[in-house]
Amino acid sequence: MSTGCYFFSSDNFRGFKYYTGINEALKKIFKSMSQIKNGKETIPLIESLDRIIASDIASNENIPRSDRAAMDGYAVIAEDTFGASENNPAIIEVIGKVGIGEIPKIMGGSGKAVGVATGSNMPQESDAVVMIEYTKVDKNHLHIVRPVVPGQNVLKIGEDIKEKQIIVKKGTRITPQDIGILAALGITNVEVMKKPRVSVISTGDELIDLGDIQKGAKIYDVNRHMTIASIIKLGGEPIDLGIVNDNYEEIKKRLKKAITSADIVVISAGTSVGEQDIVPSVLDSLTEKNDLIHGVSLRPGYPTGLIVINGIPVVSLPGYPVSNAVSFRVFVRPLIAFLLQTEEDLDYTINAKLSRRVVNTGGVRTFVRVRLFMDHDKWVAEPIMASGAGIISSLTGANGLLIIPENKEGIDEGEIVEVQLLRHLKA
Amino acid sequence: MSTGCYFFSSDNFRGFKYYTGINEALKKIFKSMSQIKNGKETIPLIESLDRIIASDIASNENIPRSDRAAMDGYAVIAEDTFGASENNPAIIEVIGKVGIGEIPKIMGGSGKAVGVATGSNMPQESDAVVMIEYTKVDKNHLHIVRPVVPGQNVLKIGEDIKEKQIIVKKGTRITPQDIGILAALGITNVEVMKKPRVSVISTGDELIDLGDIQKGAKIYDVNRHMTIASIIKLGGEPIDLGIVNDNYEEIKKRLKKAITSADIVVISAGTSVGEQDIVPSVLDSLTEKNDLIHGVSLRPGYPTGLIVINGIPVVSLPGYPVSNAVSFRVFVRPLIAFLLQTEEDLDYTINAKLSRRVVNTGGVRTFVRVRLFMDHDKWVAEPIMASGAGIISSLTGANGLLIIPENKEGIDEGEIVEVQLLRHLKA
Repeated sequence: MSTGCYFFSSDNFRGFKYYTGINEALKKIFKSMSQIKNGKETIPLIESLDRIIASDIASNENIPRSDRAAMDGYAVIAEDTFGASENNPAIIEVIGKVGIGEIPKIMGGSGKAVGVATGSNMPQESDAVVMIEYTKVDKNHLHIVRPVVPGQNVLKIGEDIKEKQIIVKKGTRITPQDIGILAALGITNVEVMKKPRVSVISTGDELIDLGDIQKGAKIYDVNRHMTIASIIKLGGEPIDLGIVNDNYEEIKKRLKKAITSADIVVISAGTSVGEQDIVPSVLDSLTEKNDLIHGVSLRPGYPTGLIVINGIPVVSLPGYPVSNAVSFRVFVRPLIAFLLQTEEDLDYTINAKLSRRVVNTGGVRTFVRVRLFMDHDKWVAEPIMASGAGIISSLTGANGLLIIPENKEGIDEGEIVEVQLLRHLKA
Repeated sequence: MSTGCYFFSSDNFRGFKYYTGINEALKKIFKSMSQIKNGKETIPLIESLDRIIASDIASNENIPRSDRAAMDGYAVIAEDTFGASENNPAIIEVIGKVGIGEIPKIMGGSGKAVGVATGSNMPQESDAVVMIEYTKVDKNHLHIVRPVVPGQNVLKIGEDIKEKQIIVKKGTRITPQDIGILAALGITNVEVMKKPRVSVISTGDELIDLGDIQKGAKIYDVNRHMTIASIIKLGGEPIDLGIVNDNYEEIKKRLKKAITSADIVVISAGTSVGEQDIVPSVLDSLTEKNDLIHGVSLRPGYPTGLIVINGIPVVSLPGYPVSNAVSFRVFVRPLIAFLLQTEEDLDYTINAKLSRRVVNTGGVRTFVRVRLFMDHDKWVAEPIMASGAGIISSLTGANGLLIIPENKEGIDEGEIVEVQLLRHLKA
């Protein structure tokens, strides 16, 4: 069914003969999605925080619109101040003032000082501002004790932003500062990428939902809630399609519904080679092409399945919560970024010293959960021992992920490694 | 008015005789706020992403609730498999199976194999699971070709989470993984800190608001929108109190309204020593104590004002957008974190090589805007030259901030520095 490197040659490890490489799998999926265009929408600027800008935004004017005072003081002709000092102040006439937000009605010029505040438009003919601290007013006469050069304390037209300058680029995840600069231009609405809709399904006869009373051997669904929160964080719009039993027809029905109503479908569990792992066969039945990728060179997370049905990518995540979270990170996150057309990386990383050797199997990308802590002002990454991918407590106990790439057999104790942060660190 | 170190001794720089140190200013404000308790509220778990947990959450049970199979296969007594190999399989009787989510009705024991799937409860008397790959079934007889040891492929009761174990700590900003672990425990609602309400006012005769038609020398308000977005990002609830003119009575009225309706008040502009900078005098008039801090050792951002009125901290931010953003970061952010009772640091940092020497004035904490870029696989931080704090384009052009601490006169070219990230980097 799937293609790719053959490993674990000594045995048919967990039922997969072949494991598709992660990059190869993603490339295949992206290729099948190439016709897909995610929509754009126009929303108010003040609601655009963290949304993705859909196309470059250029300024339609110069900022400032005209020369402005950059200090409180007096607009002058700089030449009038040359040689001024405490003992030998330059003395010129104060002929009026320009308030902030006013178009100057008076004109500067030689021998003339005009009072200005920070942000006032500069009067014509004035070319510099003397700071108020270096002046004294005696009746109508201004005593200046320090010289200024032409242009000093003046913000020139277009100095901040030039007309037609691109100020926010396509693919930008909007920050408070972006909102600031767009507001400066009077931009009330912005065009952003629509939030990709991601349908989320959990499978398993053993699952009950939040609010249900726990009975017998039933357990609460973890993956769906974790996945939905992750989708929100990435800027997608989750569609909660609930829990479905391990029943071929029921899973098929729910998947069909998911595919028609979303841009991406994520289905959890039922993807291994056990008796009740029927998601892969359902996925296979939904296309005529024989192109299901099932089994990837990722640990934890190898039983992941990937396929594109009617242009909609479907990711079948393993049921174990840690495998589920890692596989989501590796496969679903890039799909959301692809639809959002952004290259901005949401992973924050930190360099840390590895406290203990970690090992890898050839050809596999392994995610090691680590706990980061400070030791003598340096970050240390301590691999968390957990006996299986089922140990969800290790995922919340971990605050970082260390990736051992496919071409490395391990990383030695004491090496400096890059760790992806799973949560904010303590100040 | 304010106290603290005296610097710029050669002149009365920008009208301030004294500049209060940043830490001293924050300490004073926190002290005055010590009686303030921010409320808590209970909300659905699935809406709790990024909220702050109000008190430690302990597990009320063991996870798993009983021993569970960690692989698809057969539950056995390990002893029955000792010595098993391809040539010499152990052969025992298959007496039935336990489905996922079922309470086992049959009992294991010596010579007995019970079919299990990953997640099935273990039958009593069985102590290990043989993976399905190492078995063959011949009628009712199971041929086992590899031995297991007791406990192998079994997830023991409480192995993931122990009863009474603290699983999410007070002060945690809830991640998708936290939602996962809380869902595993069937926790439907969580107690989180209320979002601190932050009133936001902009002052300035020159300001117009988004949607207004620009005329004459009027400019669009930048700071209020940038501040509101920053408050949302930090987990606060902004209250938009709009623009107020540079009028003593109007500012006083608006500030009084702000103080009675919020936990923190942020007012922009009108805080320097110019003619129209009347915010500090209004703030002074609102308390009988003479405790306004005005002028701090921060650059850009020195004209910041801070005071606590009726237990509500009021921060008067400078009007220049860059000074405004830096001062918000230094003073308002810790106040929001204080009310949220979280120590989690939202600053992501990266190490980079400084491309050019930057300088500092003694006793001042200086924020240098930098542009980060990759050069030969290493991050380089290039200081952005901008002629004033008014250059808002430099704040969006910058993707990082470099802090020169109070005790350093500068940082040399080529030094490795820690840069606070202002936006996500490219993947």
